[in-house]
This record gives sequence, C-alpha cells and structure tokens, in this order.
Amino acid sequence: MSDVLEQLAQVLEERKQAEPDSSYVAKLYAKGLDSILKKIGEEATETVMAAKDGVPEKIIYETADLWFHTMVLLAQQGLGPNDVLQELERRFGLSGLEEKASRGK
Amino acid sequence: MSDVLEQLAQVLEERKQAEPDSSYVAKLYAKGLDSILKKIGEEATETVMAAKDGVPEKIIYETADLWFHTMVLLAQQGLGPNDVLQELERRFGLSGLEEKASRGK
Amino acid sequence: MSDVLEQLAQVLEERKQAEPDSSYVAKLYAKGLDSILKKIGEEATETVMAAKDGVPEKIIYETADLWFHTMVLLAQQGLGPNDVLQELERRFGLSGLEEKASRGK
Amino acid sequence: MSDVLEQLAQVLEERKQAEPDSSYVAKLYAKGLDSILKKIGEEATETVMAAKDGVPEKIIYETADLWFHTMVLLAQQGLGPNDVLQELERRFGLSGLEEKASRGK
Repeated sequence: MSDVLEQLAQVLEERKQAEPDSSYVAKLYAKGLDSILKKIGEEATETVMAAKDGVPEKIIYETADLWFHTMVLLAQQGLGPNDVLQELERRFGLSGLEEKASRGK
Repeated sequence: MSDVLEQLAQVLEERKQAEPDSSYVAKLYAKGLDSILKKIGEEATETVMAAKDGVPEKIIYETADLWFHTMVLLAQQGLGPNDVLQELERRFGLSGLEEKASRGK
Repeated sequence: MSDVLEQLAQVLEERKQAEPDSSYVAKLYAKGLDSILKKIGEEATETVMAAKDGVPEKIIYETADLWFHTMVLLAQQGLGPNDVLQELERRFGLSGLEEKASRGK
Repeated sequence: MSDVLEQLAQVLEERKQAEPDSSYVAKLYAKGLDSILKKIGEEATETVMAAKDGVPEKIIYETADLWFHTMVLLAQQGLGPNDVLQELERRFGLSGLEEKASRGK
C-alpha cells in the first residue's frame, strides 16, 4: 500500500510533459499555482462537509481529493510526498506530537 | 518511508485512550469533531499561504500539518490512511486521473 | 451605500422563484446547500490568495465574491444581512471587540 | 442598520493606533497579514460547519465572525467596506449577477 503515494508522484511528474488538454492534472499545471491552491481550499471544505455528514465513503473520497491536490502542489513546486512523510516522521519520531502540544496551538 | 502513515495511524489510535491533558491529539479528540475540522480548514489555509510565499520548507511543514489533521479526522471516524490510499490507487490504477478529468471538475 | 446589502438581499429573495437555468443564483439554490458552502470555502481561499498578492482590486473583488456567497447562504436559510449586522452591532456596541479579546481566541 | 459597517470600519481604523495588548484587533494587526488571513480561513470553515448544523444562531454568529475578519483585512490594507459594497453594486446594478452566471463559475 505504501507505494501508492510514490506511484502517484511519478504520474504527476510525467504529466508535466503532457499537453494541457490531455489530462486533468496537465490542465491544472497549465492554469498555474493559483488554480491548484483554489482546489486545495475547495477540497478541504468538501472534506469538512463530508465529515459533518458523517458518511465514511464521502470522508474517504474527499480526503483522497484533498491529498491528491496537495500532491499536485508538491509536484508543481518540485517537492514530493517523501518530504512530507519525513517531516511527519521527524515530528513523531522525536516526540513530535508532544512538541506540537507544547506549541500550544 | 511508506510506513510513516501507518505508524502515525497507530499513534493516533493509542491516543484515544489517553487523558485529554496528556497530548495535543488527546485534547483534540476530547474537544470533538468540530475542533478537528476547524484545524483542517486552518491548515489548508496555511498551506495556501505557504505556497504563495513560495518557501519550500513552509510548504512541506504546512502540508504535513494538513495531512496530520486529516489523519486525526480519519482516526476519530474509525478510518485510516489505507482507506485513502486505496481510493487513490483505485482512481489512478483504473485510469482514475482520466476519469477525474472526464468528471470535468 | 448602506442599502446595497438590502437590495442584494431582495434580489436573492426574488431569485428563489426563478428557473434554475435563468441565473447563477437560481442555479446555486437548485444545487442546494453544499454547493453554496463549497463556494464559500472557495471564495475564502481566493480572498486569502488575493491578499497574499497584495493587489487591492483583487482583494476587493474576492471579498465581494465572499460576501456575496455568504449572502446567498443567509437567503437560502431564511436569514438576511441585517441579522449579521445586528450581531456585529451587538458586539461592538456592547464593547463586543473587547469581549472577543477576552475570549482569547 | 446600514451604518454598522461604517462604524465598525472606524473602530478598526482607530485600533491601528492602539497597543497590541489593548485589544483583539490591535493584536491581530501586530501579528500581521498572515494572522488575519488564517482567521478568514478558520471563520469560513466555521460558517460552513454552522450551516451543516443548520442552527440559525450559529450561522449568524459565524458569518458575523467571517465578515468581521474580512473587515480587519480591508482595514489593514487601507481599504474599507464601501469598496466591497461598490463592487457589489456595480455587479448587480449593471446586471452583475447575470454577468457572473455567464462567467460560468
């Protein structure tokens, strides 16, 4: 299961060479950063709405949409899921969750 | 790298038994769903701001925050990262990205 | 200037009788609450992006879009701008801003 | 009722001279743009959640919070509610809503 994010990152990388009309992702790249960010705001809102509805399938679907568009952002910025996973590992490997608690957010 | 999400999911599961004051996550669970959703909205906004600033470290940091809080939501709902990864796999394994393009979103 | 919100509220009320295809607002009503809320999330994100760009015209444009869609929400819920203005008046007429500060948000 | 936004704009203007610790708004100004934008993202999410709950008082309360923080943004940027109201007037005075429909958003 763990390779899904890496495989997806590869697909997103390949789409950088594709014609804008050839796929949804290629179109997003062509429209530029603001279009990707707008989708992140939109999908976050839809995740919140799905959770309020309490329907597991919708929560999974919208969270997938949200992760997907953050992956598009990472790819567009020359970053990838491993950067995020390493950050998460750093946090909770080094008692990161406690550190966050102490940040008092 | 791939096990980071699973390890984190385990930690989030364990925190369900913890006292609210003992950790940031335990506190979030105790406050309930709306508090988790509020954080998702907040972290999505911070991801957007980090991307507008164009600072890679901030983008990684805020995306990690966003993924982290969606993981807390999944855990709170009895779901996990594999549900989301399977949904992503389903989509792009079955030419999911094209399907999405055709949805015309 | 002050009647703009009331006039807009009237227009939004009239559109409730309109055919879904006849206007943008009638279409939003027909699609239902989630479509309106999705737009609020989207326009909030666009307001944030406009502010990061620091272009006054864009900030005004996107804030107008955001207020507009919250007005559609109010109308769809049988509420109106005066409800919101009264709440704001209550807060700062009764030293509401201080109260908010003391809430420590 | 119509003067509430203008009065609030005046209060927000005056708070620019205030000590950061003296009020919630003065604190927001001192923290800077990103703090204001973060609140806009947060309050938009809370408005969405209130609407999903379907409780009129909460919808009014959270919409007031959202408008309030967009007003703080406008003030911080040297803008005001009249800029937004004029934009709204321009749109629907000049058949603005139809124009928006034709934009096909």
